[in-house]
Amino acid sequence: MKSKQVTIKDIARQLDISPATVSRALKDHPDISKTTKKAVVDLANSLNYQPNSIALSLRSQKTFTIGVIVPEIIHFFFSSAISGIEAIAYKAGYNVIICQSNESYEREVANINTLLSNRVDGILISISKNTRDFSHLKKVVNMGIPLIFFDRVCKDIKAHRVIVEDEKGAYNAVNHLIKQGYKRIAHLAGPETLEISKLRKKGYLKALEENNIANNPDYTIVADNKKDGYHGMKKLLSYAERPDALFTINDNVAVGAMQAIKESGLNIPNDIGIIGFSDDQKITSLVEPHLSSIAQPAFQIGQTAGELFLKQITNPDNQDFEEIVLETELIIRESTDNRKTLS
Amino acid sequence: MKSKQVTIKDIARQLDISPATVSRALKDHPDISKTTKKAVVDLANSLNYQPNSIALSLRSQKTFTIGVIVPEIIHFFFSSAISGIEAIAYKAGYNVIICQSNESYEREVANINTLLSNRVDGILISISKNTRDFSHLKKVVNMGIPLIFFDRVCKDIKAHRVIVEDEKGAYNAVNHLIKQGYKRIAHLAGPETLEISKLRKKGYLKALEENNIANNPDYTIVADNKKDGYHGMKKLLSYAERPDALFTINDNVAVGAMQAIKESGLNIPNDIGIIGFSDDQKITSLVEPHLSSIAQPAFQIGQTAGELFLKQITNPDNQDFEEIVLETELIIRESTDNRKTLS
Repeated sequence: MKSKQVTIKDIARQLDISPATVSRALKDHPDISKTTKKAVVDLANSLNYQPNSIALSLRSQKTFTIGVIVPEIIHFFFSSAISGIEAIAYKAGYNVIICQSNESYEREVANINTLLSNRVDGILISISKNTRDFSHLKKVVNMGIPLIFFDRVCKDIKAHRVIVEDEKGAYNAVNHLIKQGYKRIAHLAGPETLEISKLRKKGYLKALEENNIANNPDYTIVADNKKDGYHGMKKLLSYAERPDALFTINDNVAVGAMQAIKESGLNIPNDIGIIGFSDDQKITSLVEPHLSSIAQPAFQIGQTAGELFLKQITNPDNQDFEEIVLETELIIRESTDNRKTLS
Repeated sequence: MKSKQVTIKDIARQLDISPATVSRALKDHPDISKTTKKAVVDLANSLNYQPNSIALSLRSQKTFTIGVIVPEIIHFFFSSAISGIEAIAYKAGYNVIICQSNESYEREVANINTLLSNRVDGILISISKNTRDFSHLKKVVNMGIPLIFFDRVCKDIKAHRVIVEDEKGAYNAVNHLIKQGYKRIAHLAGPETLEISKLRKKGYLKALEENNIANNPDYTIVADNKKDGYHGMKKLLSYAERPDALFTINDNVAVGAMQAIKESGLNIPNDIGIIGFSDDQKITSLVEPHLSSIAQPAFQIGQTAGELFLKQITNPDNQDFEEIVLETELIIRESTDNRKTLS
């Protein structure tokens, strides 16, 4: 679907303003009004405008700074990914500045604007779970600044992406439970807005189907944190036919569920087996029994995102974007192993 | 100790260069050579030069961005403190960008330079444990940019500081162990370069002394992480007269020590009582038995640092710097409670 390349002049003509104004609007220049900027950016997006290398070379000199935006640094997964980004960035002479969106769309927009006015050479982002409008990210692309998505990505923007095999990881987790002899497998699932929640749910359902286990819709409950995990498990335990195993969207949810199971006097793994999906490798070996989990290569995700940035900055004209899918690992610990009573 | 205010002209005269060059050197202007910058900054430091409000008003317009530098965001303590800073900053219309020093002096210097070239309105920092030269921080002060220390501070620089009552917190921890009937109390201590390690050690010794318990120097071992905690405890357990209680510099060290105690077949809290110092409140309730600990108000430390920044930016001439010391809290959990066997 090759078409004639849209230029700044085309945008200027359609809006009846000068090419210089369009150019400065795309660079978020302070002299240009917000109304004009919005009109230019909207039109550039709808025409699928891509800056060419001449426009790019007109950008001011490099700052050797990369901006990273994540939902929350307090999560081990994101701070590990940032360490991976830094490992690559430092070696190539870049420094890294980090912003948190705190799962707020408005804060994410403010972060993008802060990083742009700091003239970062690239932006690496894992989007907030409340981001549904992507024009702040399209603006980055329009300005010719490399944009890399990792973990939580936006499929509608032409940019490099790094994700993990969420569906296959979930499939492996549930398959493992089935091999251990568990039959009534529940799923404490993530918020449905996130792509990763959908993929992990899909993997769960696929493993059930392949093993001829009927899906009981009551066995899927949305639970996003430790407290939710506790209450979700309480509900599952109240069923006449309670589950004998559980796959959780993340390890924090698993920890909450384990607490509910212990309080009920049931044994892990004999009465109920439980497996998580690791956002925090540290937790799995602190809880008792140690928690089986699907390990995500958070550091490697960051490294790969950093490498894709370097690739793009050395060839800014590149429009051939990659989606790199990293493997997960099934780590079997006490919570699903050495089961003594088969039900 | 009031003396005549040192001006840019004084520095220019002594170095035989123009006042404009001095001014630009202090602003880290790219046109000025590194040698000249170093000469100017060194002399400014030794003369205790402070920029006046006229110089400050000449600075370019505000960016409404605060820079924060911490050793490692992966530590719950620092990410909580950053959340506290953000809570204050966002309300006042500032955005926050974060850098990690990764405990490297060189990276900390690079971070300062990145933040300065991004023209942040202020820098809030917890210094790396390998920082022994402070000229990069003095440069910030010389440029008239508000600098606030939190947690790990530098006492040689005139700036606001926020710390916790490390000595009193440690004293309370050890006093609690003594009240519970423990008599041979060991200390897994922090690296001696850090002020907080010294203060916590001091609190430990003070509690022993006040309770007429002789200090056994063999009972203090330096241990900075979980692995160190494990090996430090192994060593303590090998003594002919092993300790019956332990106070650790942080909770991660305590977790390692608990593993060593469990492996030896001894019971916590009956045979050995253990109390930590919380850099990560989450851990304390994940381990079994739950870990007693001195809780630090990490979020409040961040908030207070944020408030001191706002105070300084609204009155940049202020030279009356505060040291705010926040209280800790003794939280008694299973690892020191309900002891059944008194030795």
